[in-house]
Amino acid sequence: MTDMTKITSGSLIAAEKVEGTNVYNRQGEKLGTVDDIMIDKVSGKAIYAVMSFGGFLGMGEKIHPLPWSTLKYDERKGGYVVDLDKTMLEKAPTYDRADDFVWTPDYGRRVDQYYNVPTYWS
Amino acid sequence: MTDMTKITSGSLIAAEKVEGTNVYNRQGEKLGTVDDIMIDKVSGKAIYAVMSFGGFLGMGEKIHPLPWSTLKYDERKGGYVVDLDKTMLEKAPTYDRADDFVWTPDYGRRVDQYYNVPTYWS
Repeated sequence: MTDMTKITSGSLIAAEKVEGTNVYNRQGEKLGTVDDIMIDKVSGKAIYAVMSFGGFLGMGEKIHPLPWSTLKYDERKGGYVVDLDKTMLEKAPTYDRADDFVWTPDYGRRVDQYYNVPTYWS
Repeated sequence: MTDMTKITSGSLIAAEKVEGTNVYNRQGEKLGTVDDIMIDKVSGKAIYAVMSFGGFLGMGEKIHPLPWSTLKYDERKGGYVVDLDKTMLEKAPTYDRADDFVWTPDYGRRVDQYYNVPTYWS
């Protein structure tokens, strides 16, 4: 994953490089990787990072959408740090990677509420 | 490219789906596709769409970074519309796809100035 730490400038990163970037907890343990980013079509703002936690917690192919504001980029680690513990993640909204999942305002609000961030959805 | 029009919700789109989305001019002619998105690591805001215009204008493998604000999403077309003509694009800042291109504040400011948008770079 060292390639993911190669940032194209001081503060810009290509979406393709975010995909695959490691995610760590506050203790520096790797939790998983960013699978994709959900962006607002009009403003171009990233709203959710879609995380894959792999075998961690035995969560297999479950996808965890995290509000973008819960991720802090750590230059030194070359990855994102989230302040989330195991219990928090286990109970978080997920969906199956295989599903043809459709985002709804209700689902989005549930995610935002779970992580206690201002909701993107009106 | 019809798959690119399958939006995951009313206003959210996966970055992976933006990549490959068609770009049209105001006359409805296809200019090219979005290759990648440059996002600000901290705010998560898309700053540039990195466009590939393919054989159009004989520009081959040249990559055109466009400030995100120059792109308007057209729900009906399932793609982005830009108000740019051929001459404007021909003279725009580009770089070679093959290059190991590194974004600098100077280059960014040049792009922003060319398209007459407020610059992202301080």
